Amino acid sequence: MRIDQPYLLFLGDAPDDLAAKTAAGIAQWRPEWCLGQLTLPGCRTTLGLPEMSIEDAAKAGVRTLVCGVANRGGVIGQAWIDVFVRALQSGMDVAAGLHERLVDIPTLAETAAMHGCKLHDVRHPQGRYPVASGALRPGHRLLTVGTDCSVGKMYTALAIEREMRARGMKADFRATGQTGILIAGDGVSVDAVVADFIAGAAETIAPANDPDHWDLVEGQGSLFHASYAGVSLGLLHGAQPDALVLCHEPNRPHMRGIPHHSLPELEACMEANLAAARVTAPATRFVGVAFNTRHLESTEAADLMAATAERLELPCVDPVRTGVGPIVDRVRADFPSAV
Amino acid sequence: MRIDQPYLLFLGDAPDDLAAKTAAGIAQWRPEWCLGQLTLPGCRTTLGLPEMSIEDAAKAGVRTLVCGVANRGGVIGQAWIDVFVRALQSGMDVAAGLHERLVDIPTLAETAAMHGCKLHDVRHPQGRYPVASGALRPGHRLLTVGTDCSVGKMYTALAIEREMRARGMKADFRATGQTGILIAGDGVSVDAVVADFIAGAAETIAPANDPDHWDLVEGQGSLFHASYAGVSLGLLHGAQPDALVLCHEPNRPHMRGIPHHSLPELEACMEANLAAARVTAPATRFVGVAFNTRHLESTEAADLMAATAERLELPCVDPVRTGVGPIVDRVRADFPSAV
Repeated sequence: MRIDQPYLLFLGDAPDDLAAKTAAGIAQWRPEWCLGQLTLPGCRTTLGLPEMSIEDAAKAGVRTLVCGVANRGGVIGQAWIDVFVRALQSGMDVAAGLHERLVDIPTLAETAAMHGCKLHDVRHPQGRYPVASGALRPGHRLLTVGTDCSVGKMYTALAIEREMRARGMKADFRATGQTGILIAGDGVSVDAVVADFIAGAAETIAPANDPDHWDLVEGQGSLFHASYAGVSLGLLHGAQPDALVLCHEPNRPHMRGIPHHSLPELEACMEANLAAARVTAPATRFVGVAFNTRHLESTEAADLMAATAERLELPCVDPVRTGVGPIVDRVRADFPSAV
Repeated sequence: MRIDQPYLLFLGDAPDDLAAKTAAGIAQWRPEWCLGQLTLPGCRTTLGLPEMSIEDAAKAGVRTLVCGVANRGGVIGQAWIDVFVRALQSGMDVAAGLHERLVDIPTLAETAAMHGCKLHDVRHPQGRYPVASGALRPGHRLLTVGTDCSVGKMYTALAIEREMRARGMKADFRATGQTGILIAGDGVSVDAVVADFIAGAAETIAPANDPDHWDLVEGQGSLFHASYAGVSLGLLHGAQPDALVLCHEPNRPHMRGIPHHSLPELEACMEANLAAARVTAPATRFVGVAFNTRHLESTEAADLMAATAERLELPCVDPVRTGVGPIVDRVRADFPSAV
């Protein structure tokens, strides 16, 4: 799966900003790919991009209409399908990260075939992945791991990519979830592959590379999440990370979705990730902690980061509030031959 | 998936004993279900069961023809299909654990539909599984975990089931792989479910039960196997084991299938499994070690087990050579309210 750019971002009739957070993520991290937005009547959010019809977008050279909005009830409605059909008729591909597949909608499948266009269902892995080999491969990889789900692992990896590139380093974000795939233009939803191939899919998306190249691999879930830890472990083994960044949101009352489970201590989470990672990456180490402090006052957040940095002897940042500069500093210090 | 008994075991044209090891496992652990065997010309193995034609088997009350033989080249040949068609025409279901699906062979799908019979592809999970809840559930569960793949985890769980039942305990083997499913009559191939649902599938196959009931859950892979550890961890979390048995084959030169990876020490493997299991089963503990000593002389094996038992303070057995009595003794001592 390789999604062609530039994009037109479809916001549909999104009732609020949250419904269009996928589109917002793409516009934030890949503004150079996003030529415009397309909204339907009733849409209550905007990305601040030029509003474009399918016809405008085709003239502007858009290659892919990206559905950046969640659908209510899990069903793709006729108003959306009409837009997707017109995009295909204009020669664009259509990409979406929904549970329902575009390819399962006969009108879309037929129109795409007729016009030689592609339908990308990024939540659903296409093709087969190999069983992981576990063999050491060249190039450097950094994986973001979490105390829980939805704590900022994708955001942190993207922020590190941007910071590394700004410093002239060779760096590529590697996507493992649907929003990440639309931002990267390719990747694999590792939680949707067959269980035997989790690590193999991770090896595939972050392959051997130059010795001074960094893959920033988007983590998934948490080794401590009772529902999804298998995905996290397979990804950890397949990513074969040289460096790890721990992502954490303070003050969560419990693990996401499972009220009877509390979050692990940072030290316990780091120790578990290090022990597990050593199976394929014997020299792996942590290079920082990325806090999501959106629910803290700024002084509270600063105090927490300072205290944690002293306790763990690691740079502690909030990618939104402080940026990830100190983590990239640590990477450069710890891996002097790989910068 | 619930496979009806009794069985007729199909051996096909198996070139040697190894090719029919699935059938041999079923005959060993469920002799009361196996009314006969059916071989084709060229078959070079036997289970010692009465040879039966499809017609004989139908008269004897066989409900399912079980394909207990591996197919060469991964393709189901016409000679096999002919037998399966006759079984369906005689009112039997057909079950197989092959990579190729019976349901994908049009003749079989049509014949099954015509005669109201089922095709069981036990390697391929049917239906959907829930996301794991991680909630504590009643009943007791023992999971076999391994230093590596193919070290005797299924055999050990079955041996413990048999020993517990012989002592009048309530015990059920819970299958997580294709041979185990044919032996149990149901179960889930956890390595073939979508990654997000590994733990949920494990919760499903070993559900809440009586406080004095033991599920003996068949382990898969190893937390230390670079290819498959995600499956092992999801299964560990979903099984929520009260008790663990470590399975190990001494003197393996490397992890199965990955020559550059050596096996973990027993202590390291136990520690990793305990730490991970505590996410859903805080009080979990090891109750024994099951060695596969087939490559050792009997005195060597006995010395190894005695030395390991002293070092780890756990009963050490070889389920084939010594039986698993000492492990069940330990279970009864450690869980006096659950026997």
